[in-house]
Amino acid sequence: MKFSHKIQQCGLSPMRKFYPYEVAAEAKGLRVHHLNIGQPDIETPRAFFDAARDFGETVLAYAPAPGVEVYLEAVRDYYARLGYPITCDEILATYGGSEALQIVLPCVLDEGDEILIPEPFYPNYDTFVRVTGAAIRPIPTSAEEGYRYADRARIEPLINEHTRAILITNPGNPTGVVLTPEERRLMVDIAKEHDLLLISDEVYREIVYGDEAPSSMLEFTDAAENVAVVDSISKRFSATGARVGALISRNKELMGQAMKLCQGRLCAATLDQVAAAALYRKMDAAYYAGVREEYRRRKDAVVAALNRVPNVQFSEPEGAFYLMVTLPVDDAEKLQYFLLEEFQDQGETVMYAPGEGFYGEPGKGRNEIRIAYVTNPDDLTRSIELLGLGIRAYNSRKQ
Amino acid sequence: MKFSHKIQQCGLSPMRKFYPYEVAAEAKGLRVHHLNIGQPDIETPRAFFDAARDFGETVLAYAPAPGVEVYLEAVRDYYARLGYPITCDEILATYGGSEALQIVLPCVLDEGDEILIPEPFYPNYDTFVRVTGAAIRPIPTSAEEGYRYADRARIEPLINEHTRAILITNPGNPTGVVLTPEERRLMVDIAKEHDLLLISDEVYREIVYGDEAPSSMLEFTDAAENVAVVDSISKRFSATGARVGALISRNKELMGQAMKLCQGRLCAATLDQVAAAALYRKMDAAYYAGVREEYRRRKDAVVAALNRVPNVQFSEPEGAFYLMVTLPVDDAEKLQYFLLEEFQDQGETVMYAPGEGFYGEPGKGRNEIRIAYVTNPDDLTRSIELLGLGIRAYNSRKQ
Repeated sequence: MKFSHKIQQCGLSPMRKFYPYEVAAEAKGLRVHHLNIGQPDIETPRAFFDAARDFGETVLAYAPAPGVEVYLEAVRDYYARLGYPITCDEILATYGGSEALQIVLPCVLDEGDEILIPEPFYPNYDTFVRVTGAAIRPIPTSAEEGYRYADRARIEPLINEHTRAILITNPGNPTGVVLTPEERRLMVDIAKEHDLLLISDEVYREIVYGDEAPSSMLEFTDAAENVAVVDSISKRFSATGARVGALISRNKELMGQAMKLCQGRLCAATLDQVAAAALYRKMDAAYYAGVREEYRRRKDAVVAALNRVPNVQFSEPEGAFYLMVTLPVDDAEKLQYFLLEEFQDQGETVMYAPGEGFYGEPGKGRNEIRIAYVTNPDDLTRSIELLGLGIRAYNSRKQ
Repeated sequence: MKFSHKIQQCGLSPMRKFYPYEVAAEAKGLRVHHLNIGQPDIETPRAFFDAARDFGETVLAYAPAPGVEVYLEAVRDYYARLGYPITCDEILATYGGSEALQIVLPCVLDEGDEILIPEPFYPNYDTFVRVTGAAIRPIPTSAEEGYRYADRARIEPLINEHTRAILITNPGNPTGVVLTPEERRLMVDIAKEHDLLLISDEVYREIVYGDEAPSSMLEFTDAAENVAVVDSISKRFSATGARVGALISRNKELMGQAMKLCQGRLCAATLDQVAAAALYRKMDAAYYAGVREEYRRRKDAVVAALNRVPNVQFSEPEGAFYLMVTLPVDDAEKLQYFLLEEFQDQGETVMYAPGEGFYGEPGKGRNEIRIAYVTNPDDLTRSIELLGLGIRAYNSRKQ
């Protein structure tokens, strides 16, 4: 049987190959610390489970294709509180941020088209783009410049007749970069001037460590036609398994095209939307502040611990709960195998996401890793200590 | 901004255009009976809500990409009870049957490829296929032959170098056709001989009115490489809003390709999978028999009522809860507008799905309609009576 070209170009998760080695390490009795996964240990607010429990219907019926009304209204009101007035018609309920991307990308991308994405990028973007038949043209950044990408001279030469969109993650996964107000304005200006869709993945919106309020590309009402926002409750409310997100745009034609795909798959899950609405309704400013403070403690713990590891390079994250670290090793994948197969300290070792999977070009990011800091500060401190000890052992082993 | 060719070729739901007329009719005080929607009124078993309520985790975490273990095991055991042994590795949990199609189709379809689908077909198939860049080549059937399609002489001439797959719905939506054992064998033989993937959408499996047991294309182990089954709890357990389905295949390479897309979107909703597992675990043979009996009563009510309407043509459905009816009118869409705008009987009127939306070629099916019989027999009887009265009024109106 013949498989499609596009599916053959898609990759499996780069983390997958380490799984058997993790299992083997644990079978030897090792405790494996995880810096590799974006699953927070923060409790999902009870409001979600309470709403699911109190669901009063006897038939679990289809939701409307664009979303359950209470969910759409809750999202609308959440954005109003942020200072971005939108209407329910400008929101489509999706299965997490992932489906928002799976809906918006085929609306603008045909085979042979290109989309600009700052590199390093979230690896699943590659799958979502390839399945449309289009390709990512990476906006290259560098560790030395802290992975900043909002630079007209860097971006405009990459735009050609095949370019249809720009996709950014702000706050950034895997880099922790948060755009300044000027950088946000620049990105939207570039999209508008070149008639491109700026797709802004803002699922980490609230997790910012500076003084600025949480932001959105919806701010720029003069460029509303060129902006689509991807959102999700997954990280905001530590409810990744709920799979409730949103595609938001004031571009009516875009939303009309997107509706075709929403109708095609009938609806997103009814009960999860109702429960997500309760999260938006019941969690107040103190909740958001508490979550932000918790991640700040974790970020501070990771940064302090990394400062004790010789010869690593990194920029302090400004948001989200990830950072890229350049290691003093030849190959971060080889180090990962070493950490799982040969290394241990007091019966413990550590896993991370090797950097190469976050780059479009093979070979790039080979001595970089992505760290997700989603566990408690003590565990994070120990994890980074293990990383440092592992690097030393790796570099001093007999070759 | 430029939208993709593929999204522009997708259509909005053909039912959507009648919605404002329905609202207007109700605003006039009319009661509108619904033969147009596939949302059953049968209660979702409490087991679903109980399991959702009893979910014991404090963090609603990502499910594994291929599915929650208890759900995969429950599906495996359900198929074992049917006589089709499969392993959990041969099952991927999906957002309903819809996502199973959204996953399997791009695995085999590239731009310019073709997929054979018996016509009339479920309209959303068209969206799922177009978004891959491929096109449907309809297998034409006729009302006179009861929409039967499993016929080598009819199918083989449609296969060419672009053909990659055959997609069937068995039991059939919108036709109610159920393949005989010989017809099932023929379909799988054709797929095997031409090295095509036979995608069998079996979401209505249990709703069959003959003496035969519920069947699956998984029966043909000698053609296992060529078969993928689409399944869902939506109709089986009247839980359409749960959005829990499955893609099932013994073709390891296909499942490996499909896994790329499963990993890309991270997972299907955790809580709904856990609750769906409880449905599979707790609902016994009596439950399935009860549901089948209920739909049989509804089918009998519809058939009896249709037999009282002059000059309509239809074949008695063998399964699912739909049938196509040929009306003695020039245009079923015009009749629908008439029923909503001009007609009423004792303050009541009726809606159905005009047949044209179930055909690939414009103009086909213009005097046909699809009826979904998902309400109680009394309501169905009255709905069909209204249809008959409406046809008489429509045909005797002054032109």
